[in-house]
Amino acid sequence: MSLINDLSWRYATKRMNGNKVSADKIESLLDAIRLSASGFGLQPYQVFVIENPELRAQIQPIAYGQPQITEASHILVFAAWNDITEEKIDAFIQLVSETRNVPVEALADYRGAIAGSMLQLPMEVQAGWAARQVYLAMGTALAAAAELKIDTTPMEGFVPAKLDELLDLSAKGLHSVLILAVGERDAANDYMANAAKVRYSKDELFVRM
Amino acid sequence: MSLINDLSWRYATKRMNGNKVSADKIESLLDAIRLSASGFGLQPYQVFVIENPELRAQIQPIAYGQPQITEASHILVFAAWNDITEEKIDAFIQLVSETRNVPVEALADYRGAIAGSMLQLPMEVQAGWAARQVYLAMGTALAAAAELKIDTTPMEGFVPAKLDELLDLSAKGLHSVLILAVGERDAANDYMANAAKVRYSKDELFVRM
Repeated sequence: MSLINDLSWRYATKRMNGNKVSADKIESLLDAIRLSASGFGLQPYQVFVIENPELRAQIQPIAYGQPQITEASHILVFAAWNDITEEKIDAFIQLVSETRNVPVEALADYRGAIAGSMLQLPMEVQAGWAARQVYLAMGTALAAAAELKIDTTPMEGFVPAKLDELLDLSAKGLHSVLILAVGERDAANDYMANAAKVRYSKDELFVRM
Repeated sequence: MSLINDLSWRYATKRMNGNKVSADKIESLLDAIRLSASGFGLQPYQVFVIENPELRAQIQPIAYGQPQITEASHILVFAAWNDITEEKIDAFIQLVSETRNVPVEALADYRGAIAGSMLQLPMEVQAGWAARQVYLAMGTALAAAAELKIDTTPMEGFVPAKLDELLDLSAKGLHSVLILAVGERDAANDYMANAAKVRYSKDELFVRM
C-alpha cells in the first residue's frame, strides 16, 4: 500500500532548507489532523500553526536551539487541555447534537460516559489523558505529511513551561506537549537524510497469539 | 489527498460482523505500525496480535463486554515498556549500529542523548513516556488501517491491571495501554456506521500565528 512507501520515505528531519510548503499542502495537513481519532472524539487540544519568523526565533532557544525551528516552513505546537470540565463536555455534546441533528437529550448516555470516566479524575490525570490524545493526533499528522511529501520533525525536546509562557497557554487552559516542524529537508546538510531506517524486526515487535 | 478520504471513511466501529481480515492486509497493517515514529526511534512497546477466539472471550469482560473484542478478526494489544534501562538503550544502539553499519562507538552521542534524558526519570515517568509512544503508533495504525479499508476500534476502555495479568505482561516488563479491534463493520447493526463525523471546526482547533 502506498502509506508503507510514504512512511518509509519519512524520517525525523534534522536540517531543513527554509523553503515554504504550499498553502494547499498545509491546509491538507491540518485537515488530516482535524480528522484524527481521539478518546470519545473529544479532541482535547488546540494546535498553534506558527509561520511568523520572529516568534519562531523566540521559540528556538526553548527547543534547545534545534535548527529546524527556524529552517522549517511552519511549526505546529500541539497543546493539550489542562483539564476536562463539565463545560467542555457540554460544549462537545452540543457540537455532536448540531452535527448529527439529534437532540442533546438523546446524547445523555454519551455525555454520561465521558463525564463518568473523566470528571472524577485528578486534574493532572485529565491533563495527561489529553496529552496522550495529542500523540495520537501526531501519528495522524506524520502519516498525512508523509503522503503529502512534506518533511517533518516531531519534537519532544523543548521546555514546556517556557513555551507555555511565551504563547500564554496557561491563560487558555492549555499546556504544550509536542512541536512538529514542517518543511523541506536540506538533504546535502542532513546527515540523516540517507540513513537506513532503524526498526525492531516484526518478530521482536509483535507477539502472535 | 487520498488519506483525507480514508480518514473520513474510518470511524470507531461499534459492531463488527466476525469476518476475517486477509492475512495480507494484517501484515500490511503490522508493517505500518513497525514504521511508526517514536521518541528517539526507541519503539518502547510490543504489540500482541490476538486471533485466538478463546483468549479474546477471556479479554471481553476485561473490556467491559465490548462486542468488537469477539466480533473482530483480530485484536491488537499495545503494551508499553515499564521502564527505560541501560540494557534496553544498549540493545537499541546495537540495532542502530547493525542496521546502519556504523560502529557503536560512533553512536555515543545518540546513546548519551537517550540515556541523559531517560535514565534519571522515575520509573513511572519512564512508563508514561513509553505509553505516549503507543498513542503515536496507534495514530499510525489507524491511518494505515483506513487506507487498507480495514475497520477498527481503538479502545481505552478496559481494566489494564487485569489484562496485564491475563497476558502475563508484568513478567515481560510491559503494561497494556490500548487495544485495537480490527475487522469489518456490521453496518446493519452499528448505529454509528452512517453517523456524521463530529470534529471541531478548523477555526476552533487551529490558532494561526
